Amino acid sequence: MRSFQRGALDLRPVTLTPGVNRHAEGSTQVEFGHTRVIVTCSIEERVPPHLMGKGTGWVTAEYGMLPRSTHTRTQREAAKGKQTGRTMEIQRLIGRSMRAAIDLAALGPRTLTLDCDVIQADGGTRTASITGAYVALVMALRNLQSRGVMSKIPSLTPLAAVSVGVVNGEVRVDLDYEEDSSADVDLNLVATGDGRIVEVQGTAEHKLFDRKLLDGMLDGGLAAIQQLTAAQAKVLG
Amino acid sequence: MRSFQRGALDLRPVTLTPGVNRHAEGSTQVEFGHTRVIVTCSIEERVPPHLMGKGTGWVTAEYGMLPRSTHTRTQREAAKGKQTGRTMEIQRLIGRSMRAAIDLAALGPRTLTLDCDVIQADGGTRTASITGAYVALVMALRNLQSRGVMSKIPSLTPLAAVSVGVVNGEVRVDLDYEEDSSADVDLNLVATGDGRIVEVQGTAEHKLFDRKLLDGMLDGGLAAIQQLTAAQAKVLG
Amino acid sequence: MRSFQRGALDLRPVTLTPGVNRHAEGSTQVEFGHTRVIVTCSIEERVPPHLMGKGTGWVTAEYGMLPRSTHTRTQREAAKGKQTGRTMEIQRLIGRSMRAAIDLAALGPRTLTLDCDVIQADGGTRTASITGAYVALVMALRNLQSRGVMSKIPSLTPLAAVSVGVVNGEVRVDLDYEEDSSADVDLNLVATGDGRIVEVQGTAEHKLFDRKLLDGMLDGGLAAIQQLTAAQAKVLG
Amino acid sequence: MRSFQRGALDLRPVTLTPGVNRHAEGSTQVEFGHTRVIVTCSIEERVPPHLMGKGTGWVTAEYGMLPRSTHTRTQREAAKGKQTGRTMEIQRLIGRSMRAAIDLAALGPRTLTLDCDVIQADGGTRTASITGAYVALVMALRNLQSRGVMSKIPSLTPLAAVSVGVVNGEVRVDLDYEEDSSADVDLNLVATGDGRIVEVQGTAEHKLFDRKLLDGMLDGGLAAIQQLTAAQAKVLG
Amino acid sequence: MRSFQRGALDLRPVTLTPGVNRHAEGSTQVEFGHTRVIVTCSIEERVPPHLMGKGTGWVTAEYGMLPRSTHTRTQREAAKGKQTGRTMEIQRLIGRSMRAAIDLAALGPRTLTLDCDVIQADGGTRTASITGAYVALVMALRNLQSRGVMSKIPSLTPLAAVSVGVVNGEVRVDLDYEEDSSADVDLNLVATGDGRIVEVQGTAEHKLFDRKLLDGMLDGGLAAIQQLTAAQAKVLG
Amino acid sequence: MRSFQRGALDLRPVTLTPGVNRHAEGSTQVEFGHTRVIVTCSIEERVPPHLMGKGTGWVTAEYGMLPRSTHTRTQREAAKGKQTGRTMEIQRLIGRSMRAAIDLAALGPRTLTLDCDVIQADGGTRTASITGAYVALVMALRNLQSRGVMSKIPSLTPLAAVSVGVVNGEVRVDLDYEEDSSADVDLNLVATGDGRIVEVQGTAEHKLFDRKLLDGMLDGGLAAIQQLTAAQAKVLG
Repeated sequence: MRSFQRGALDLRPVTLTPGVNRHAEGSTQVEFGHTRVIVTCSIEERVPPHLMGKGTGWVTAEYGMLPRSTHTRTQREAAKGKQTGRTMEIQRLIGRSMRAAIDLAALGPRTLTLDCDVIQADGGTRTASITGAYVALVMALRNLQSRGVMSKIPSLTPLAAVSVGVVNGEVRVDLDYEEDSSADVDLNLVATGDGRIVEVQGTAEHKLFDRKLLDGMLDGGLAAIQQLTAAQAKVLG
Repeated sequence: MRSFQRGALDLRPVTLTPGVNRHAEGSTQVEFGHTRVIVTCSIEERVPPHLMGKGTGWVTAEYGMLPRSTHTRTQREAAKGKQTGRTMEIQRLIGRSMRAAIDLAALGPRTLTLDCDVIQADGGTRTASITGAYVALVMALRNLQSRGVMSKIPSLTPLAAVSVGVVNGEVRVDLDYEEDSSADVDLNLVATGDGRIVEVQGTAEHKLFDRKLLDGMLDGGLAAIQQLTAAQAKVLG
Repeated sequence: MRSFQRGALDLRPVTLTPGVNRHAEGSTQVEFGHTRVIVTCSIEERVPPHLMGKGTGWVTAEYGMLPRSTHTRTQREAAKGKQTGRTMEIQRLIGRSMRAAIDLAALGPRTLTLDCDVIQADGGTRTASITGAYVALVMALRNLQSRGVMSKIPSLTPLAAVSVGVVNGEVRVDLDYEEDSSADVDLNLVATGDGRIVEVQGTAEHKLFDRKLLDGMLDGGLAAIQQLTAAQAKVLG
Repeated sequence: MRSFQRGALDLRPVTLTPGVNRHAEGSTQVEFGHTRVIVTCSIEERVPPHLMGKGTGWVTAEYGMLPRSTHTRTQREAAKGKQTGRTMEIQRLIGRSMRAAIDLAALGPRTLTLDCDVIQADGGTRTASITGAYVALVMALRNLQSRGVMSKIPSLTPLAAVSVGVVNGEVRVDLDYEEDSSADVDLNLVATGDGRIVEVQGTAEHKLFDRKLLDGMLDGGLAAIQQLTAAQAKVLG
Repeated sequence: MRSFQRGALDLRPVTLTPGVNRHAEGSTQVEFGHTRVIVTCSIEERVPPHLMGKGTGWVTAEYGMLPRSTHTRTQREAAKGKQTGRTMEIQRLIGRSMRAAIDLAALGPRTLTLDCDVIQADGGTRTASITGAYVALVMALRNLQSRGVMSKIPSLTPLAAVSVGVVNGEVRVDLDYEEDSSADVDLNLVATGDGRIVEVQGTAEHKLFDRKLLDGMLDGGLAAIQQLTAAQAKVLG
Repeated sequence: MRSFQRGALDLRPVTLTPGVNRHAEGSTQVEFGHTRVIVTCSIEERVPPHLMGKGTGWVTAEYGMLPRSTHTRTQREAAKGKQTGRTMEIQRLIGRSMRAAIDLAALGPRTLTLDCDVIQADGGTRTASITGAYVALVMALRNLQSRGVMSKIPSLTPLAAVSVGVVNGEVRVDLDYEEDSSADVDLNLVATGDGRIVEVQGTAEHKLFDRKLLDGMLDGGLAAIQQLTAAQAKVLG
């Protein structure tokens, strides 16, 4: 039986708690079962050098794990003096996804930084981060608008993310850590509620996969994402 | 008027929430007003090289701030590739304080690591960290004992910490960020509930201070610490 | 018209030149049009710490670009003191792909390191690297066998990789730099000649994509990979 | 018996030798017994970014130890690629103390950098550094004045520093390395000759301390500092 | 017998292949026997800060080795996070030599960067790099001229480099790796075809050397350099 | 006229002061005019990994400059987080020279580390370092012998170093900073008193040089080195 007594294509209990940080322009805590991530969205009225003078905005992301968010303690990246390849890969994925969620030209010469910090990890931290980041981003934009800094919120594309895997030949969505460790295939999907894909990354961890299995994973993942975008919409009112 | 409608020698509302992390041997969330820190205590059955074969244990601490725990976003130390001097200074202070709280010889060849991660900062993050770390440390030891790894918890010295400052000539305890920024003197005190000092660090930020003012700050600080150790005792049962 | 007067689903001229390095156990130069990568496979009779005593082997990869492999000079990572997130992402992808190509248990306690160094870049450096790495890996194993170090070559899964993109609404395989810069969707595919997938990474660069477009990209990519594995087989005899 | 046949509250022989460096605007060699530190004060006609356009000046400090200033060779921080937490803590203390010694607004948009390099260490390197740094700073300012760069030297607050400890229950000032290693309490005090405190940092190394013991340490430390500021005044004429 | 059946004062077969990189302003592949280096020359229309506004140009060099250019795999400097002392020493030597080859004032406010990347190493990589770098530099200047960016090529001093050693008491030029490892004296010489010296670096690896032996090494080295500058001239037309 | 009223081939006043550090096994302060370097020799009873079990010893060197040893303040390498190419080049030269001065096999499995720290720089810091390092090394060996750790001092080759340059067409030895900055040719020579060469490094800074000029520089340098080895012998008794 899967954790939280759920079926193969069911999500864990998902909670989105906006406004968890009094300093950030936007923030949310996102929980997928025991996975818990705090996402803040910070706005700065400047853009990176390569965009200066072009009028367009930028969205970037950083990802980190508290040392004891994991089962055994992971060395602190700040103490080690560098970020791991995994961290870089994840924050690049979050950043790309968030840039797909917003009309950068309409944002104007501003930079939004999404900080995704994992407080407790139990599988799916990158997909939880993306799902929470969309909420924090929208809240930050509304904040700008309500403060009169921005007259109109740029056009948005609501999106969310979920992990999908093949465990013992069965397609499952939203894997927890234990399932993730034994999955034959591991796929992360970022998409809109109406099934348009932003990013798909599938890896044969222990077994190669064919088109049919990929289709099964995409079916499961897109259905779950529909639920996640509905949860986001509910929180965002 | 001070934040939370309090008097010069009053603490902000203090909350200690143990068990906030399902992976760590011990954990607590500590809040001093809007300052919020998650502390985990991790136990490893090994000691640093310089203690090998001596039978004694070790306690160490690491400190970090989420990038948007601060009013404006602070650069992530992991991305920058090094910890600031302030971070190092604080984690050394926490480590020393925790080593004073426990009989290291009785701990046996184990290392306890206290990770103090600031989720939201509003002044006094190092003193909140120490106050919470003592709770996380005790919980981790009880965990070891309940799992039968350790038959007897080493002798402990309950301790807590508070900041004290001089603002407009007045001694105040537990300064928030705004008060801290304008204080003439800034003092951090680590002590036991019965007034024995573990660490005192006083700095003339804008005005030198005399013995009398130092005495006033110590009086205020020790009284506050008595309340903090009482709060710890209550949580620890 | 595409470079090299080719159709939307055609590869650029592909050349695999084995034995380009007299020191390495296995090596190949791989060219996809103007993209040119030297891959060497080095064998060491030891495994990383986490595999010690388990009898199984390991395969890892590193990727680098010569500073002037690019249109304008890119800063040397060794001089900068760290590898970029892009480099890490790519070398992790190559390593995972190569681990899927070989039976690690049968390899025995050895580490194979695939170094992929881009001499000249014109799009598709990661997919060219993977395609060449498989050849270098096989040559290194044969080398071990011919020197009597290994009696039997572990079971292998021939695989190759290609980039696919959507440019002006058209699915194209093996994009050069110019096409890559303007593609709406960018997908990298690693697979076997018979259509089993090792890794798929698709990104909406400028436009979200639906299942139908994804299917078109997979069709094009898998057909191209079939040609690449045939080219590998020819070179390997 | 203590080193140099001195009483519990006596300093080791203290020597201040100004003008030891022909390039620096101000310099001094300071010796507390066998502890020997070279301090230079460098002046630059610019301020850090956060002070630009404010008209005020800045004072900062850096601290280092020659690898063999210690009993056994310490690894060179430049070779290791980073400064230790101890180094950072000490140079932050020296910098704060020196900023308290001078009217920064009257300094004008200039930066004074105090480099404190320990040639030989035998306890008390940070307090010797501060005591010497005040002399180097004054000499640098006089140099500016004599060269006509500055018409009037900013208002100064003469200050010095000493270590105090509790060894075998006895309060002692100016501990050498051997005493320092076995002290129960270790306190560093920075103050003026007339007893106003700039910084106090007291640590229970092996035993907690009460208010009475703290008072004893402060009495001893302030009396010693009076001698040190007298020695500074003598050298400065 | 020496490799390639050559006499003590003979070079290995030397090949200079210009135009090996389609992106760089100038490039050449240089081979001294099995030593193979790709050199590119990149031109930027700016100078380092210390030359700004002076009208003069700058030439700099960077050197790297592919991890498996060596007999056993060498750790990638980019992965290690820093360049070795040997790398720094070599690239400084190449840079100085190239600055001696050109009239920097006549170059105008431009920077030429020579990237020398060793594809395969068998002794003499630094001298091969310098010999190839001169060709790449000239080609880059001609490129600038042909594109009309520069009306006249600055005055040039053709130069090349060779290694000389003493092996079993015999002076030999252009040592391969095996000879280099057993040489008693190792000397690197950079000079013009008509015998003017740019740089000479001689090291007693296992035996001190006298003036007579030094003279013998210089004789052999200068004669070899004459052949190398002739080869450069032939390639450059 | 040259500094210190000396002729073209005269050294500046040279002072060697042994025993300047009470912790190091051997130490000396060396002054060439205003250039002042402290050299310590530390002995450890272990060798680097590549020499383990071979019975032979090792000698290595590190070099550093105090930030204000230079005319204007140089950034501290420890703060910057890495050593410059110049530092690496110099410490490699010192290490090679010292290894040539001693029979490493007879040293036994020990490592000698020569730390050369420049207190004040005025040209010739690397040659002063080598000259002083030989004295510190001998003193450390005598120390080992007198403590009974080593029965017999390994065979030694006394050596020293000097800089030579061509200024206004004239060969000069032991250049100070001002001369060094304007020299056309800069040569560093390490040799024995009887004229055997350990290392020669000559660089055409502004003008190429011919064999005749090189001979003149070697004549001047070797004569000066004879005086330096005599000074060493006098100090070493």
